[in-house]
Amino acid sequence: MKKFDCFSPTDFRYSVEELKDYLTEDAFIKYKTIVEVALIRKLAEYGICPKDIIDEVEKASEKIYTKEVYQKEEELKHDIRALVEIIKSKVSPKAKLYIHLTATSYDIINIANILRYKNAFYDIILPDMVKLERSLIEMARNEKNTLQMGRTHGQHAEPLTFGFFIAQYVNRWGNMILKVKNAINNLVGKFSGSIGAYNALSLFLDNPEKFEYDLLKSLGLKSSKISTQILPPEPLINLIHTVVLGWGVLANYADDMRNLQRTEIGEVYESFDVKQIGSSTMPQKRNPINFENIKSSWKKFMPTMITLYLNQIIEHQGDLTNSLSSRYLPELFVIFDSSVKRAINVTKNLQINRDKMKKNFVQSADKIIAEPLQILLSQSGYSNAYEKVRELTIVSNQESKSLIKLIFEDKTIKPYLKKFNENHIKLILHPENYIGIAPKKTAEICDLWERLIINIEDDVSE
Amino acid sequence: MKKFDCFSPTDFRYSVEELKDYLTEDAFIKYKTIVEVALIRKLAEYGICPKDIIDEVEKASEKIYTKEVYQKEEELKHDIRALVEIIKSKVSPKAKLYIHLTATSYDIINIANILRYKNAFYDIILPDMVKLERSLIEMARNEKNTLQMGRTHGQHAEPLTFGFFIAQYVNRWGNMILKVKNAINNLVGKFSGSIGAYNALSLFLDNPEKFEYDLLKSLGLKSSKISTQILPPEPLINLIHTVVLGWGVLANYADDMRNLQRTEIGEVYESFDVKQIGSSTMPQKRNPINFENIKSSWKKFMPTMITLYLNQIIEHQGDLTNSLSSRYLPELFVIFDSSVKRAINVTKNLQINRDKMKKNFVQSADKIIAEPLQILLSQSGYSNAYEKVRELTIVSNQESKSLIKLIFEDKTIKPYLKKFNENHIKLILHPENYIGIAPKKTAEICDLWERLIINIEDDVSE
Amino acid sequence: MKKFDCFSPTDFRYSVEELKDYLTEDAFIKYKTIVEVALIRKLAEYGICPKDIIDEVEKASEKIYTKEVYQKEEELKHDIRALVEIIKSKVSPKAKLYIHLTATSYDIINIANILRYKNAFYDIILPDMVKLERSLIEMARNEKNTLQMGRTHGQHAEPLTFGFFIAQYVNRWGNMILKVKNAINNLVGKFSGSIGAYNALSLFLDNPEKFEYDLLKSLGLKSSKISTQILPPEPLINLIHTVVLGWGVLANYADDMRNLQRTEIGEVYESFDVKQIGSSTMPQKRNPINFENIKSSWKKFMPTMITLYLNQIIEHQGDLTNSLSSRYLPELFVIFDSSVKRAINVTKNLQINRDKMKKNFVQSADKIIAEPLQILLSQSGYSNAYEKVRELTIVSNQESKSLIKLIFEDKTIKPYLKKFNENHIKLILHPENYIGIAPKKTAEICDLWERLIINIEDDVSE
Amino acid sequence: MKKFDCFSPTDFRYSVEELKDYLTEDAFIKYKTIVEVALIRKLAEYGICPKDIIDEVEKASEKIYTKEVYQKEEELKHDIRALVEIIKSKVSPKAKLYIHLTATSYDIINIANILRYKNAFYDIILPDMVKLERSLIEMARNEKNTLQMGRTHGQHAEPLTFGFFIAQYVNRWGNMILKVKNAINNLVGKFSGSIGAYNALSLFLDNPEKFEYDLLKSLGLKSSKISTQILPPEPLINLIHTVVLGWGVLANYADDMRNLQRTEIGEVYESFDVKQIGSSTMPQKRNPINFENIKSSWKKFMPTMITLYLNQIIEHQGDLTNSLSSRYLPELFVIFDSSVKRAINVTKNLQINRDKMKKNFVQSADKIIAEPLQILLSQSGYSNAYEKVRELTIVSNQESKSLIKLIFEDKTIKPYLKKFNENHIKLILHPENYIGIAPKKTAEICDLWERLIINIEDDVSE
Repeated sequence: MKKFDCFSPTDFRYSVEELKDYLTEDAFIKYKTIVEVALIRKLAEYGICPKDIIDEVEKASEKIYTKEVYQKEEELKHDIRALVEIIKSKVSPKAKLYIHLTATSYDIINIANILRYKNAFYDIILPDMVKLERSLIEMARNEKNTLQMGRTHGQHAEPLTFGFFIAQYVNRWGNMILKVKNAINNLVGKFSGSIGAYNALSLFLDNPEKFEYDLLKSLGLKSSKISTQILPPEPLINLIHTVVLGWGVLANYADDMRNLQRTEIGEVYESFDVKQIGSSTMPQKRNPINFENIKSSWKKFMPTMITLYLNQIIEHQGDLTNSLSSRYLPELFVIFDSSVKRAINVTKNLQINRDKMKKNFVQSADKIIAEPLQILLSQSGYSNAYEKVRELTIVSNQESKSLIKLIFEDKTIKPYLKKFNENHIKLILHPENYIGIAPKKTAEICDLWERLIINIEDDVSE
Repeated sequence: MKKFDCFSPTDFRYSVEELKDYLTEDAFIKYKTIVEVALIRKLAEYGICPKDIIDEVEKASEKIYTKEVYQKEEELKHDIRALVEIIKSKVSPKAKLYIHLTATSYDIINIANILRYKNAFYDIILPDMVKLERSLIEMARNEKNTLQMGRTHGQHAEPLTFGFFIAQYVNRWGNMILKVKNAINNLVGKFSGSIGAYNALSLFLDNPEKFEYDLLKSLGLKSSKISTQILPPEPLINLIHTVVLGWGVLANYADDMRNLQRTEIGEVYESFDVKQIGSSTMPQKRNPINFENIKSSWKKFMPTMITLYLNQIIEHQGDLTNSLSSRYLPELFVIFDSSVKRAINVTKNLQINRDKMKKNFVQSADKIIAEPLQILLSQSGYSNAYEKVRELTIVSNQESKSLIKLIFEDKTIKPYLKKFNENHIKLILHPENYIGIAPKKTAEICDLWERLIINIEDDVSE
Repeated sequence: MKKFDCFSPTDFRYSVEELKDYLTEDAFIKYKTIVEVALIRKLAEYGICPKDIIDEVEKASEKIYTKEVYQKEEELKHDIRALVEIIKSKVSPKAKLYIHLTATSYDIINIANILRYKNAFYDIILPDMVKLERSLIEMARNEKNTLQMGRTHGQHAEPLTFGFFIAQYVNRWGNMILKVKNAINNLVGKFSGSIGAYNALSLFLDNPEKFEYDLLKSLGLKSSKISTQILPPEPLINLIHTVVLGWGVLANYADDMRNLQRTEIGEVYESFDVKQIGSSTMPQKRNPINFENIKSSWKKFMPTMITLYLNQIIEHQGDLTNSLSSRYLPELFVIFDSSVKRAINVTKNLQINRDKMKKNFVQSADKIIAEPLQILLSQSGYSNAYEKVRELTIVSNQESKSLIKLIFEDKTIKPYLKKFNENHIKLILHPENYIGIAPKKTAEICDLWERLIINIEDDVSE
Repeated sequence: MKKFDCFSPTDFRYSVEELKDYLTEDAFIKYKTIVEVALIRKLAEYGICPKDIIDEVEKASEKIYTKEVYQKEEELKHDIRALVEIIKSKVSPKAKLYIHLTATSYDIINIANILRYKNAFYDIILPDMVKLERSLIEMARNEKNTLQMGRTHGQHAEPLTFGFFIAQYVNRWGNMILKVKNAINNLVGKFSGSIGAYNALSLFLDNPEKFEYDLLKSLGLKSSKISTQILPPEPLINLIHTVVLGWGVLANYADDMRNLQRTEIGEVYESFDVKQIGSSTMPQKRNPINFENIKSSWKKFMPTMITLYLNQIIEHQGDLTNSLSSRYLPELFVIFDSSVKRAINVTKNLQINRDKMKKNFVQSADKIIAEPLQILLSQSGYSNAYEKVRELTIVSNQESKSLIKLIFEDKTIKPYLKKFNENHIKLILHPENYIGIAPKKTAEICDLWERLIINIEDDVSE
């Protein structure tokens, strides 16, 4: 097969090389084989099979080719049985007897999946998430004093700093890292047989739960409190939920940056290669293609949660109506990671136009004092301050007069202005100072998350 | 790249060979090139470029390799501009001047997509849908007299025939074929330039709408009434909706058959290969894996409609937040077709256990006369017939007595039974006849849809 | 119950008075009673019950109170049986015998629902949709020559007119009206009994399909080709799909207008009452609250389609897993209509700032000639025109020089400019003319849809 | 307004009286007023307003009527400003000055919502969830030794006990209780003003974060690490996700019970009132209407998660596109609680038919020994035991012979059977013993969750 002979853009367009060791079909077969070998080892340890076959099974396991497993599956119409037969074909008659003994297919599949997902997250995806957090922290710190107009409903509201704006994402994304890590750690395995009551293992053992515990522990995993043929579906759904939720934070960030990049606003710009083409026909265009791509990937994969909620409903002790749908999960992880990598790159190279931020602020500087003014007037005893200021705002708009001027000219207001302290007067005259504690809060949040992700990184590198 | 080095199961597991000519990335590049060539031809026809370059552009277009286009895109970060540059690199300086002239990227992309989708449906997917309809019709006809217990709420209700059961699917699936075909025919193209006002074409032509009409006509397509940079999104969303709706009919059929295959019910069975394995540990198992796969494919792809509804919202004259998400549509078509093919196969080979159907009917035969009885009693003048029969049903259950017996013994009922005509008495004694017009209706529906799909097939083969 | 003692905002906040006759629970009971009466009439006509009871049943039907039906349901735990008992309690012993005779609950429910949905759409919702179309047409016509900058990716692209912008919505919304009407017309009824084989009716009639046809015709409806206990679910799902799709057009329109209302862009404004408050603390704010509300209503109701696709899967001849979920459909219709009404109001009163549109255009006027220029240069024989113009654009940006100036100064370009005809030169110097056929196309589209909706209105008023 | 004059079934059909104090519009106004009063108290404490107004504001707050707030909103088109004006209208001129001072609307709204949600869960919904857990534990314990056939793919697999079946739900539902409680505890408030930088509070205070902390603490809440005009949306989305996930467990339970209630399976039955009607026309029907209702409620509300994921995207420092959509959340909580209450009731009264469970097991008892047999044969040294047993199973089916008999007759197997120990032979002869550790595991899980929910209850009653 050639790359461009593929149907899925995951493979011909958005692939992530580093994830191939975990999330391709080759990787899946590799992980399933690891579990079958771990099983043999544990069976031997428990005296159910002879110890001297471990080595040959282990060796055989290194020469399993996905292609031959698939050929065998053609014939048997059963994927795990095919793998079992291929392993058997490579060991002695004696060893053959014990391959897959006491296991049901899903015992192997679930452990293999959880193991590879966990490794993919710990080795690649979580470290990428942390890198993005570092980039956001760096940007927030650099811009913590950069004046920007705050906007609600798309309308100029009150001022803040661009660093403070970004600090929101430092906080939301940081939380997502913690949640994803937590969800990964909550994935558990099972080795309880075809309907979950350890029927097969009980043939040989009084305490089959201990065997399950030991087998999973040898692979670095924990066991489910109880299971049927399959695991309770909720822990995996929680993982996907947290990934989708993290994706939503990326999508929100992408939209915010796209809005700031509108020609009329022009406060940030994606960096642009010298050779890069913006439009096939309009040579002047500079489009936010990376942020658009991130938004698009969210549109594509967010609805997967519906599939996951549907996967929650499985009949009695198990069925296969989740089989095909679950095989597509690796794709979701790959594109999520691809979007995170893209976000890192575009964040690191984001061009920030502080002059334009200043200019945009100035456009409404006169109006934004309406809020502090009505508050200060009220607090100074002026009745209906909100209404009064609102009226002056309307006059200011209709007659194109400065609101500040109108205020200082207003006779009913004058006596109250005298009650204002120096700082308050200064604020009214210099509305660019009405930024609350934006710089301080930005620094606090950056400090906090820097501390929190150091621990994550320790963990991840364990 | 090797097959099992893929992330997407569409490519390593569920691929449909026949659709590769339409829906892979190679096919997409091929179709986009076709559109660029058609454009040159039309520009020449309208005197905007010289006619003598048509041949060389056409020849060059046959030697475009996806790989080189992707390499160029690496550099330019723009997919269509990359294709344009590759075509240019293969023609004379004179011809270079006119490649892509007056087009915007999306003009090319939209036409290429609609063209290949249309062909994929007309050549492969619609004919497969028709094949499934034929299989269903055949089964319905064969079983039109096969007595089966009707079930509502999972409870035995009144009898019908298995053919009548299947006739519902003949009707629903037939409707889906008509709707899909209709949705495909409603796909239109556009060639109105970068913001939809024909700005570029207007440089040369007074009537650019005619040019658009002619260009699309030369490719067998119609043009949109109006467009921006992109097409109104609704026609494509309608197509996906009809596909998803058809998929829902398949999923419902799969669930119905899975339920009939429960061990205790056992009325139908998926055929099973001699070598086929049902379970990796339980050699006795015969699982409905094909119907489970169909249900699972629906779980996976149905939620795509959310992505499509999100794709409806595009800012002003266009943006790229639908780009990645739209590249995944071919995958949906491939797996839909794969599910249809699977449904054909499993339907053709379905094992129907008429004895078990009969046995299951007999289990409740005594009870089902409750309905006709209360109706006939009412109509004969018996007050509160419903309540009376309901009470006898309870007695029949509690005392494990035959309901029919209880009825014939009941003194209040006796006088009214005398008013029943012969047919009604026969029905009460032989509840297997209480099947309404099931066989006749089955035949009617099969006749109707046989007629309707003959026309479809004529169309499809056009 | 008091209004604000409700949980659902549909009832305490977003209610539409005009729809109460169709979509409340009172209305539902009323419609179900209409169907029971129509059934009596038809039974009499077919000689299954005496004709002289029609009058008393009809009179009784006018005095049915929802409250008493609900009280009876408490006892029987069955909604239709409760209604039947209440009707019976109000007629003579003779008439009692025939109430609901041969019907299954869902026969009544489905007909009642389809009848009231159809009436609600024909009487209220479709006329509202047409009103919005008229408002859009009016705005498009008024602004067909108003110069506006076209935007793709949020970036200035090429110019068009504001009327042309709106004409896209005239076209998309017009299509939605047609589709909704079509979907309403495709709703059909059924009267085929408890499992769809006309088991009960067949007790009395050889041709029960004719009875079904006549009964439905007497209510202005058509019958389904075949049914189980319930109707094929697809026609109703199609209706909701078209409503949701129409809602998506509204949401897109709302987003576009919200973007144009951003402080920096300021091309349109929602009108604002004198007393209206924009923010509880910022008296200067003027927020696009109506467009935000429309977007929000789409977010809330669009995902309902998932419920509908789930409703497609019903076991065998019927179950009740769609019962609760279907009872919420009226709510969706109410809020859709409420959003349409809101859109009409905000469109009619939209404030358009043509000066700001002009100013925004001027900001990039110099750059937008890049497109026509590269096309004209190519067509005049200049090699690599796209690349050349792209370079000049970069110079223009970096050195803050006029692109037009740079072009006229460039020595390699000069000889080609001489080949340009007068119109082309004029266009380069007056980029505000580079609007293609925007005004003409706007007029065409308005004419077309004005014609098409006249027919709709004829229909609606039938 | 009358009850049946409502559009939403939440209000006329599925209402939960106990939740009215938290989740109606009246309750919302009440909670918002509580927050405004708490603010006054805190402003006084911090010396921003005089202390002597607290009492009168508090008194006024008890006489706020939703109706008058709505009338004021008509005029002002702003809900919070309307409430503020109504409070002001009931206090002295002096107190008027300080109402809502330094607050932005959403400060009030978010705190009010979180407070009432928290109370609704702690007072009503979590205790109901715990009650259901107790019912499940009770059933699991009672049936821990009740033999039942395990089923995978709808096919008989290996035996377990009905208590073990239920223990899976004890575990999954128990987990959901913990998760919901956790999600509730993670809800935080904010009081950081109109764009989140504490601009207004900073007019008076150096440490506005402390004010926010104290205000929220006085209401029993915590504050967000950082916020814009609005809170980071993720904690609320997590709550809805856990509710939806819990609903999925209910839906799965409902489906499992519905399947066990199929006429042919008949292992459990919903209890049925003496007067209850199963079908309006079939007096013999006993339908699982409560489990159907639960499934239907899940179909209706599960897709709400899409709305929540869409709500994650808010522009810059806030907009109102989540306003309408968020007002529908109480409805989701009400119907969830209603489904939990229904599940409690149906579980407590579930009729379990142990005889039918036994009979169903016996139907396949002969076949299920295939699994232990192939395992024991392998472990005893028999080559290809799986294949051998599989063949005998086919013979057994085709020739309708007992599989056990065939095994004991088979010459190749005989020598290996001798190696079996006594227990293994017994198991083959008495397959009803092949239930693994089902009873023991059931007891373990019940013990565990009984322990875990005692703590929850302590918490809840705090």
